[in-house]
Amino acid sequence: MGQTIIEKILSHNTGKNVKPGDIVTVNVDRVMLDDIMIPFIVDKFHEMGFAKVWDPDKVVLIYDHLVPASQQDDTRHFRVGDAFVERYSIKNIHRSDGICHQLMTEAGYVKPGHVVFGTDSHTTTYGCVGAFSTGIGYTEMASILGTGTLWVKVPETIKVVIDGELPANVMSKDVILRLIGDLGADGATYRALEFTGSAVKNMSIASRTTMANMAIEAGAKCALFTPDEKTEEYCEIRLDDFQKSLVGDADAVYLKELHYKAEDFVPVMACPSQVDKIRNVSELEGTVIDQVFIGSCTNGRLEDLQAAAEVLKGKSVAPYVKLIVTPASRKVYQEAAACGAIKTLIEAGAIVTHPGCGLCCGRTGGILSDGERVVATNNRNFLGRMGTSKVEIYLASPRTAAACAVAGKIVSPV
Amino acid sequence: MGQTIIEKILSHNTGKNVKPGDIVTVNVDRVMLDDIMIPFIVDKFHEMGFAKVWDPDKVVLIYDHLVPASQQDDTRHFRVGDAFVERYSIKNIHRSDGICHQLMTEAGYVKPGHVVFGTDSHTTTYGCVGAFSTGIGYTEMASILGTGTLWVKVPETIKVVIDGELPANVMSKDVILRLIGDLGADGATYRALEFTGSAVKNMSIASRTTMANMAIEAGAKCALFTPDEKTEEYCEIRLDDFQKSLVGDADAVYLKELHYKAEDFVPVMACPSQVDKIRNVSELEGTVIDQVFIGSCTNGRLEDLQAAAEVLKGKSVAPYVKLIVTPASRKVYQEAAACGAIKTLIEAGAIVTHPGCGLCCGRTGGILSDGERVVATNNRNFLGRMGTSKVEIYLASPRTAAACAVAGKIVSPV
Repeated sequence: MGQTIIEKILSHNTGKNVKPGDIVTVNVDRVMLDDIMIPFIVDKFHEMGFAKVWDPDKVVLIYDHLVPASQQDDTRHFRVGDAFVERYSIKNIHRSDGICHQLMTEAGYVKPGHVVFGTDSHTTTYGCVGAFSTGIGYTEMASILGTGTLWVKVPETIKVVIDGELPANVMSKDVILRLIGDLGADGATYRALEFTGSAVKNMSIASRTTMANMAIEAGAKCALFTPDEKTEEYCEIRLDDFQKSLVGDADAVYLKELHYKAEDFVPVMACPSQVDKIRNVSELEGTVIDQVFIGSCTNGRLEDLQAAAEVLKGKSVAPYVKLIVTPASRKVYQEAAACGAIKTLIEAGAIVTHPGCGLCCGRTGGILSDGERVVATNNRNFLGRMGTSKVEIYLASPRTAAACAVAGKIVSPV
Repeated sequence: MGQTIIEKILSHNTGKNVKPGDIVTVNVDRVMLDDIMIPFIVDKFHEMGFAKVWDPDKVVLIYDHLVPASQQDDTRHFRVGDAFVERYSIKNIHRSDGICHQLMTEAGYVKPGHVVFGTDSHTTTYGCVGAFSTGIGYTEMASILGTGTLWVKVPETIKVVIDGELPANVMSKDVILRLIGDLGADGATYRALEFTGSAVKNMSIASRTTMANMAIEAGAKCALFTPDEKTEEYCEIRLDDFQKSLVGDADAVYLKELHYKAEDFVPVMACPSQVDKIRNVSELEGTVIDQVFIGSCTNGRLEDLQAAAEVLKGKSVAPYVKLIVTPASRKVYQEAAACGAIKTLIEAGAIVTHPGCGLCCGRTGGILSDGERVVATNNRNFLGRMGTSKVEIYLASPRTAAACAVAGKIVSPV
């Protein structure tokens, strides 16, 4: 019988022919530790009595949420992390290079078919290159650091087929938001989301990354895109036979299949304060806003900044609106500077911050206060996420967000 | 009898022949209101019962300390400010263009001979172009907004003469630090500092700005540089006869005169935690550091970033050190980007933040925690200024700071 992509990855990893519901122990290919969790991971690791890290080369520590530090205790996390990597000879550390989920694929740590865990819920992101990746807690991470293994229940798969060509003002963010709206915030809980169809094949890795990143917002355990020639180019590899096989078989068993026509998508927003409260932007036009945020691991890549720059070229941000732009990584920042996008954004009045998690998780870089409304390209609009609990967050694509920044209110992008 | 520069400015402003100790009422040419103080200014202004602002065109409101907002209540300050400028038809507002003290001269608000007040202690800065400027509280500012006047006691003047040529590794920051060390933190309290001599004449406006900015650290009421052809170019004006007269007369009466030979200056630092605890960098070499900060209204200008970039070109920041760079304004950022300095800094590993006050006042952008040591180019090393009260701050020039970032410890700049 055929298999879905997640079944193929877990079968390959465990050497068994797995099926949904099986509890299997996987050999971990990579782990991602972030700066928020590192002190807790280290404490647990020592409490568990491990003498060494199972494979230091498979461990990546990334400082992103707290860079640059905005609270008095933040740099203590860096010192704990620095001491840990030194003690256990871990070489892969990024102190201010960007957001973890961007760096894990951009810096080449994750390849198609890998099994990866990270101490952040948006670790589903690496499905953009055909890896199984998901978020775990710091206790589980401490255990992996000592053993190199973790148990996983093989998830059922929901297949999402999108055929055709997306309209010019629609980005992959609109696609994943619509899907989350259709599934509901718990509609894919512990399921794998497998994306396919001609519109998906035409998407850049960056666009796929946006969708894999937000899969967790429908509760998904993981998201999976079939590796292809774009993946080869992005990951700087030639796909091996196993990696080439990572496509859902025709006779694989899916929990359900969702079919979309790409031409039917329109710009949408997730309205305050639920990720699955999706409305067409056209229904929300005229809503006055205070701020716009373009960035995050969801939408802080080069194509996102370029889309924003295209909209803002020769225009100005509305006087009362603050436009905060945060590239996802140092590399993205440099590329956006080299191609002129940063210059365009700055000239339009944007506040460009250092690459990092910053405002998305409400730590720094544009915190909002009571009664304010923000259009943001990140992945969560929960109460209190980007400031006080009386802030209204509308999630949107970079193209929509940039158009709103110019108008000072919600408008549809051209 | 001859006059010092401050006596000439106040005589011209009041139409009287003033002498030190006189209490005079001045007509205010410009006021600078910042985002920290705006809610308090507005409250006082209304409490005083004023129906209108005396001259809206003379008022400049600048958001800098809280941009981008890092705490939950920050943007409330912007909303209070936005409502105030709208209600009273104030046109000069900068919402994210840089630090107030940079913008006041850079954007052309302050000219030689002006009388200017601002709600920030480093308002002494505008002496760099030969203006009398000083910091006041929010109650005084509310009163000026209603009346356009303020009383001032004419200060005595201390003359500082620096002749000769500064060594290549010495910047004007080293000069002002040495002077503060010699005078003591209260050594010029309520006095005017008047700078002259061939080394001063050779300084750029940016270098003079650094010195005027820090005059308050010796307690000075104001700092004054004679306007010249560099001032004309920077301010985009032709000096009128009054402005040309702003030089201390040969028979003016000075409280005291300090004479320095420029060749005698060496790179220095203000050591934790007093601005007047000055030591030669050579005496401090080897002290391990955690972070370096290059920026602020003291040293965040193009020549400062270029000096840092020159040191960092082709080198890397020491692995454990965080280098935070914050341009003083959007214009500086753009110029530094255009000339390649930002690229060099980013490639060396710097974290470049949006122009603003940020880390200097411990609000965002690299806050330190207990036991950490920072080399910083800003103007104060008070306990708790840039993080917890157990952080050690060494104040230095951008050239020295950049050299320390590469070495990971205190070293003398080349």
